[in-house]
Amino acid sequence: MRQVAIVGTGCTKFGEMWGKSLRNLFIEAGLVALEGAGIGGADVEALYGGNMSSGRFIEQEHIGSLLADHSGLSATHIPSTRVEAACASGGLALRSGIIAVASGYHDIVVAAGIEKMTDVGIGSSIDALASAADREWEATVGATFPGLYAMMARAHMQEYGTTREQLAHVAVKNHYHGSLNPRAQFRNKITIDTVINSPLVADPLRLYDCSPITDGAAAVVLVPAERAREFTDTPIYVKAAAQASDTIALHDRRSLTTIDATVVAAERAFKMAGLNRSDIDVAEVHDCFTIAEIMAIEDLGFFEKGQGGPATLDGETAIGGKVVINTSGGLKACGHPVGATGIKQAVEIVEQLRGELGKRQVDAAEVGLTHNVGGTGGTAVVHILAR
Amino acid sequence: MRQVAIVGTGCTKFGEMWGKSLRNLFIEAGLVALEGAGIGGADVEALYGGNMSSGRFIEQEHIGSLLADHSGLSATHIPSTRVEAACASGGLALRSGIIAVASGYHDIVVAAGIEKMTDVGIGSSIDALASAADREWEATVGATFPGLYAMMARAHMQEYGTTREQLAHVAVKNHYHGSLNPRAQFRNKITIDTVINSPLVADPLRLYDCSPITDGAAAVVLVPAERAREFTDTPIYVKAAAQASDTIALHDRRSLTTIDATVVAAERAFKMAGLNRSDIDVAEVHDCFTIAEIMAIEDLGFFEKGQGGPATLDGETAIGGKVVINTSGGLKACGHPVGATGIKQAVEIVEQLRGELGKRQVDAAEVGLTHNVGGTGGTAVVHILAR
Repeated sequence: MRQVAIVGTGCTKFGEMWGKSLRNLFIEAGLVALEGAGIGGADVEALYGGNMSSGRFIEQEHIGSLLADHSGLSATHIPSTRVEAACASGGLALRSGIIAVASGYHDIVVAAGIEKMTDVGIGSSIDALASAADREWEATVGATFPGLYAMMARAHMQEYGTTREQLAHVAVKNHYHGSLNPRAQFRNKITIDTVINSPLVADPLRLYDCSPITDGAAAVVLVPAERAREFTDTPIYVKAAAQASDTIALHDRRSLTTIDATVVAAERAFKMAGLNRSDIDVAEVHDCFTIAEIMAIEDLGFFEKGQGGPATLDGETAIGGKVVINTSGGLKACGHPVGATGIKQAVEIVEQLRGELGKRQVDAAEVGLTHNVGGTGGTAVVHILAR
Repeated sequence: MRQVAIVGTGCTKFGEMWGKSLRNLFIEAGLVALEGAGIGGADVEALYGGNMSSGRFIEQEHIGSLLADHSGLSATHIPSTRVEAACASGGLALRSGIIAVASGYHDIVVAAGIEKMTDVGIGSSIDALASAADREWEATVGATFPGLYAMMARAHMQEYGTTREQLAHVAVKNHYHGSLNPRAQFRNKITIDTVINSPLVADPLRLYDCSPITDGAAAVVLVPAERAREFTDTPIYVKAAAQASDTIALHDRRSLTTIDATVVAAERAFKMAGLNRSDIDVAEVHDCFTIAEIMAIEDLGFFEKGQGGPATLDGETAIGGKVVINTSGGLKACGHPVGATGIKQAVEIVEQLRGELGKRQVDAAEVGLTHNVGGTGGTAVVHILAR
């Protein structure tokens, strides 16, 4: 199995980008990634695009061809593949691109994530997102994602004593990180009171517990590790690319307070990398709701079950803390263009490990992790990256 | 790069399966494939599912998790990935599964294709299918797939003298083949008159020039070639897995009468396999419309440009002919559950090469080819399989 390195990164500003379509966003991120790797489009041998629901959001499928076409790469008839795993589509595109390089089928591969959510075509964006849940047994009877994660939050509060303030502090910390990130959708700092006094969405989750609807794209350039220095002086190596599934419906799970797909994907990733939890300096985790970050940092093994909330309140996950979580601002403040998120996470970690992030830079970051979840945990993808 | 073999196949009956949902269809095909390989679900290490537009057809995304869940494979937290390239989604799932085995990431992989088209959720199935075209520059201004392929047919008739009768004979031949296939949606034999007197859909294409709306699923089991005989006495080896893109919009192509993605994918496949066109005994090609089969057998290099129509009328592509095309009945008669078609093609070729197909068996078939197209040619995937 060939080892793989990341040699270029690109990411658009995240937000409501009413002047840019899905294809524009992809080109913007892709060009920056190619420039970083010092290559042109004709050098790229394959393209993987993560996208959750362009069929619902912009009435467009066949995204692989669309991306190849509008980037000019159809001129070389590049193999171009869309992968989908709901909100983990980006993470899956990254893993698919890594496997393509590892296989020897392709040398230079672009893995991108793209979602255009604010031009909703058919039905509302909430209903499009609900297609990440079990349509027959959850969505049809009225479950939405805020509702499903609210149940997880209530159970976590009951089981472990997690508090309203601890949940709120995830958002406070991520808005602070986002204030340092020029790409973030929200750059305003907030307080625990901002969260607690915001409108109720699905009890106990309030507006500021929820990630927003976002347009955006991100891209990375992947090459065989032994060729990495042809493209950059600061390659970042892929130490592990792991993926796990679980039941699509929340009610079929063993637990409401642990995402087993995260636990298993993390176990597989740490085994593949030959590293320990304590080796991770910085991580981007899937905080679609505040409770999701608390569960993620527990399920990934950074904190004991039930200690995610207190650790967050104690600042252990903020810049300067024990393991810095979501310097991008996370899904909460950077924004959550669902198919793009997994690649944005990789962009952030690569740029952290290169020491390029200025005010939000984590000192001497050597090893980083990305964690991307589909639905309520039907899919989880974990990558470990290192200098 | 590890070589890969197919050691199990499964395929549902194709048709209007009103009593079966997408998940039921997948299980039905998948179980038969596992049984053929003599393995249980716990042996499977990864799952790839080709599906075009479950978001539009049944309001369900996150298909990887859904398939893992309903097959019981979420119990082992199997990595499960949906890939999409419109009507080439199945072919792309096959190629993605092959790359996963070739990479060494996984040993035993199921590649499946699934589409449930007759329970249309949001909008009509015609509009869902139109999302395989360029929504902004084709579908929004009224283009549908029959309309786009009708333009290709008119241009081919003009440029090469292809006749109405030659087009019709593609359907006559494929309905004859379908009459021999218990899995086919249509098993009625037809005549050239049946086609020519059927209702006009988009001039010159009539009802019997068009593939139907279909529910169905198919699955294959992939393993490293060196392990193939652990699972079966009749492994079929993957000699090539090639993919090419082109502009998504038909009007941006070099030609209306050649699908360049097919030409390039075929060149890549024959080069990878080290084989010639004359080595192919049997092929499943993408006949979404009758004109598409004529273009395919030319673009794949079986016949000179302009000779596809005459060769079809002369019986060179029927059972007993020079290169037998679409013994399954093709998309036209076997049916076209869009995401499943590429895998069904592989199932048919594997079973041909094993000599298992009774009345539709091609004598002494040693080498076969599958050809799967997305949209009007924005994606093409070509596989070459051999005993």
